[in-house]
Amino acid sequence: MSDIDRSSAIAILGGTGDQGLGLALRFAVAGRPVVIGSRKADRAEQAATEVLSQVPGAEVAGFENADAAVRAEIVILSVPFEHTASTVKAIREVLVPGQIVVCMAVPLAAAIGGAPAHTLGIWQGSAAELVASLVPDGVDVISAFQNVSAHRLQDLSEAVDCDIIVSGAKAPRGRIIDLCGLIPDLRGVDGGPLANARIVESMTALLIGINRRHKLPEGAGIRITGLPDDPS
Amino acid sequence: MSDIDRSSAIAILGGTGDQGLGLALRFAVAGRPVVIGSRKADRAEQAATEVLSQVPGAEVAGFENADAAVRAEIVILSVPFEHTASTVKAIREVLVPGQIVVCMAVPLAAAIGGAPAHTLGIWQGSAAELVASLVPDGVDVISAFQNVSAHRLQDLSEAVDCDIIVSGAKAPRGRIIDLCGLIPDLRGVDGGPLANARIVESMTALLIGINRRHKLPEGAGIRITGLPDDPS
Repeated sequence: MSDIDRSSAIAILGGTGDQGLGLALRFAVAGRPVVIGSRKADRAEQAATEVLSQVPGAEVAGFENADAAVRAEIVILSVPFEHTASTVKAIREVLVPGQIVVCMAVPLAAAIGGAPAHTLGIWQGSAAELVASLVPDGVDVISAFQNVSAHRLQDLSEAVDCDIIVSGAKAPRGRIIDLCGLIPDLRGVDGGPLANARIVESMTALLIGINRRHKLPEGAGIRITGLPDDPS
Repeated sequence: MSDIDRSSAIAILGGTGDQGLGLALRFAVAGRPVVIGSRKADRAEQAATEVLSQVPGAEVAGFENADAAVRAEIVILSVPFEHTASTVKAIREVLVPGQIVVCMAVPLAAAIGGAPAHTLGIWQGSAAELVASLVPDGVDVISAFQNVSAHRLQDLSEAVDCDIIVSGAKAPRGRIIDLCGLIPDLRGVDGGPLANARIVESMTALLIGINRRHKLPEGAGIRITGLPDDPS
């Protein structure tokens, strides 16, 4: 993949985890080059092999996080919240203006040994705004993908059936809304400015609680109704 | 309506407003006795007349708020956030153990002249928890109905098509979930403990932002997907 097209590639840091691997599979199916990042290159390479085995012909490769982040304009952070800041710090030196960093972290209290369906207070307001405080000038941070079920992403035989609320500056927000549309039955909904990540992150905690009360192995999702492009 | 059945009646304080009147219409259609409350009895009586004109044969009457609150086991607070605490203080003397007070207020920053799609920080955590701090012992507070479109409620020719996330103590929460089921295509979803009202109230601010960006006169709603009883 030395000839990877950086403008169409999608880097997924933490792409070895359930949600990251699910996104990697879905973007590979959609024909986009996928660059998987991990703290250890060999684990990223293993995940790339896994994607290739499920999506023959996929353009996919694995690298250590910073080596992955330089290979795509869009860099999705799919690491647990407790590793979000350290991951951003590990790649910030290689980020350049024009790149889009997508934060899908949810600051669950479980990160510090607390309840799985509670969120922590973040000084900046949300995990996404924390990330925005750490990236170089000219790099946009977008909040998205928090509430999509890993189980549904990984089951390529099924549509995902979920709305993704996308927040951040207008132009990069539009690009990530378009990205959502590459995955069957996934829809990006314009969630306004990045500060609204505060709401979307806490909504994910609410969905986790609903999953637990209803014992939903596939995970609850969310749909906004009343939009002009509602799925029928 | 001197013979009103208190156990099946639903009191709607602020039932002269758009959302409250919409709920009054829908519960009247479902055959439940409806008691509309307002700060002024004559305005409540006017609203009751309006309900009766749209739902002939409805069992509906209007009273000053405290006189309404004594007439139903379930008391829905449908007043703007800035009048929520004063309304509860005006009725707390007449509330008795076993009653359920439903809070549908959203602490929008607009209440203090701020942005319509931002929420205020509430010391107790949410408007619903603020209400819970004000009611007498033995009265349950449930958070619900924040995000249902007044326009959709009032248009009796259409189904409402929205999930209502219901939070609070288990037994009264179940009763309000059942209440949602009286309205066509409205579904109550178990939202867990009352503290989750923090999330639901802020979600409503997010929906208001989506309404504005997409210019949706009917109002966006929300659906949780993946539940066993999902609408088809």
